[in-house]
Amino acid sequence: MSALRFQILARSASNRARLGRVTTPHGSFDTPAFMPVATAAAMKGLSPAQIRGTGSQIILNNAYHLFLRPGGDRLERFGGTHRFMRWDGPILTDSGGYQAYSMSDTAVLGEDGVTFRSFIDGSKVHLGPDSSMRVQNQIGADIIMAFDDCAPAALPEEGADERRLARTRRIEDHARRLEEAHERTLRWLDRCVRAHARPQDQALFGIVQGATDLDLRRRSVEGVCSHDLPGFAIGGVAVGEGTDAIRKVVEFTAPLLPEAKPRYLMGVGYERDIVMAVAAGVDMFDCVLPTRNGRNANAFTRNGSIRLRNARFADDHAPIDPSCDCEACAGGFSRAYLRHLFTAEEMLGPTLVSVHNIRHFQRLMMDIQTAIREDAWSWLLGSWPCIGAGREQPETDEQP
Amino acid sequence: MSALRFQILARSASNRARLGRVTTPHGSFDTPAFMPVATAAAMKGLSPAQIRGTGSQIILNNAYHLFLRPGGDRLERFGGTHRFMRWDGPILTDSGGYQAYSMSDTAVLGEDGVTFRSFIDGSKVHLGPDSSMRVQNQIGADIIMAFDDCAPAALPEEGADERRLARTRRIEDHARRLEEAHERTLRWLDRCVRAHARPQDQALFGIVQGATDLDLRRRSVEGVCSHDLPGFAIGGVAVGEGTDAIRKVVEFTAPLLPEAKPRYLMGVGYERDIVMAVAAGVDMFDCVLPTRNGRNANAFTRNGSIRLRNARFADDHAPIDPSCDCEACAGGFSRAYLRHLFTAEEMLGPTLVSVHNIRHFQRLMMDIQTAIREDAWSWLLGSWPCIGAGREQPETDEQP
Repeated sequence: MSALRFQILARSASNRARLGRVTTPHGSFDTPAFMPVATAAAMKGLSPAQIRGTGSQIILNNAYHLFLRPGGDRLERFGGTHRFMRWDGPILTDSGGYQAYSMSDTAVLGEDGVTFRSFIDGSKVHLGPDSSMRVQNQIGADIIMAFDDCAPAALPEEGADERRLARTRRIEDHARRLEEAHERTLRWLDRCVRAHARPQDQALFGIVQGATDLDLRRRSVEGVCSHDLPGFAIGGVAVGEGTDAIRKVVEFTAPLLPEAKPRYLMGVGYERDIVMAVAAGVDMFDCVLPTRNGRNANAFTRNGSIRLRNARFADDHAPIDPSCDCEACAGGFSRAYLRHLFTAEEMLGPTLVSVHNIRHFQRLMMDIQTAIREDAWSWLLGSWPCIGAGREQPETDEQP
Repeated sequence: MSALRFQILARSASNRARLGRVTTPHGSFDTPAFMPVATAAAMKGLSPAQIRGTGSQIILNNAYHLFLRPGGDRLERFGGTHRFMRWDGPILTDSGGYQAYSMSDTAVLGEDGVTFRSFIDGSKVHLGPDSSMRVQNQIGADIIMAFDDCAPAALPEEGADERRLARTRRIEDHARRLEEAHERTLRWLDRCVRAHARPQDQALFGIVQGATDLDLRRRSVEGVCSHDLPGFAIGGVAVGEGTDAIRKVVEFTAPLLPEAKPRYLMGVGYERDIVMAVAAGVDMFDCVLPTRNGRNANAFTRNGSIRLRNARFADDHAPIDPSCDCEACAGGFSRAYLRHLFTAEEMLGPTLVSVHNIRHFQRLMMDIQTAIREDAWSWLLGSWPCIGAGREQPETDEQP
């Protein structure tokens, strides 16, 4: 009895990549899939029709934000987030654990979850495995995520006068914290599975943690995958560690996950991270980069990103990417006009560049799907120079 | 040799209203027409497709804003504002005189125009009849407006210790200022007509001034209409005076304007002001109300406006106006969702409510056109209770 069906339609001849299709109560999406993020049941300035126009088949909502506003009870009365935001395709919600812990300076972690101050009105709020499942059931997304303990992957910074002994203890403390997070994540997963009230409608994914410790990752896979869940995610990646560390963890962890279930790499990322992870066998991705960068006038192109506020675009009559078929590029909006919108603080600028950026990632996914089907990885790398480029090479706003 | 053709297709049996069509180099629009305002070559969050979807056939740009940014030379290199903002229908630009004078505390008025500080970088800028025509030629709108002297219509406020003699002098000063503005407006119109470089592509409209002084209005009509221009506007209305004063001026002035030319009432207004002016023989309107109110969560309905931030809408599953066919209402976006977008500061809220508000005014214009054709004014008033309501009756944000 599962809300989700996963078919693998083809496999790459060169690596572990798979071409597939996930079917949910609100329709199907092709994998490898990129899910743009509609945090608070809205993707910034994009209407559902505009989201659909980017080729996005599934989108992500944030349970933490919806829990605080408009609240689970209200969304339940509405019939869930699909009806609330008028998106009739598949939706995934994350559990809210990461946000509850990271968005509040006063968050307190305990065996029952996280107690924190609401960023809206400062009131004391609690979110844990039971309440997260309850609110995710109320939100009604097709795929919901287990509530996990997201311990910081990086070693805390050293104090200025730290001695050798202190450093050893700091490393030991961090290792103990990761171990504790691992064990708590498994206990919470048990609670999530028990608390999940709608398994026939909503597919619960487990989340593997373990930071950059491969032994911990292996043990996390064993524990999390002991549950027969419809899908599994790799969490705690791309939280500040370098691209090599991401590669090491993903290439180690993805193949350990059940072959027949969709694999979701949370919060990743740049084009080359996605291609690397697909080759390691990952099927699903989400990232705020297209919309967050879009809001800041940073546009993705196949040759790398460009900052549209740069004065050199003031008389540039070309679209962001002449090869792009998005509403902004195919609509003939020039770089000069987009730059004007940002300097004049017109909302249309963030909307159009976000539309373009999401389409950029969806076109990448389509080409990745072609690369898998036709074993055309060299063609992919040749068509997308940004994959070979450094992870983040933003232009400066000013000309030299 | 004119860039504009005006056909009167029907006349009301009950009043001076006319049904017509204006044809420009970028297509036609039906009159009475409502022109939404895309100040800086963008209508806030609306794409041209969304503007078109509201039924808008002609839009307005602001020469003052485009003069300062991105500048006339840049727009000319682009081939004008149509190509810049990707709107292929008719566009009207105002002259910038009103903004230059009213948006700067340091504006200095002289015989050659207004010198003021740019709101962008504080630099000293000059705009007058010659430079306004030049920049409007560069922007390339289908209809351009004469640069006029917009003297404040209202009597300046009295000082706290004003004596009777001082009051008399204040009234005399104001009358002298209006007289001076009238004469200067006529001198500037001569200069505009001479400076206009593209009369075959762009129709220049003259603007009648005179505040609430009907004798001055009559003399202004005589002076302005001594030029054989393709259209005429009534300026200096709805600048703070009450709805009765608006009615007095419009009902006096509109019938004095040439019968065969389109008549444009600048910056008006609320639904009942528009219906009153149509009945007096006005053909064209513009107003920022739909977008400005939309940005602030104030939605127009046939029964009056509603403030969507109000808590009473938090669980309201109905659209803004169940009878409306706009992207927001027909798309099924509820008042509760729109309220959520505003409280969560999501850009989609202002966009959707602006779309609705513009559509509200376009549907009013369609019904006005029907009322003229079928002499159905009682039907119009019955269908639009807001026409009979007070000029501005905003709801409070809080419930009692």
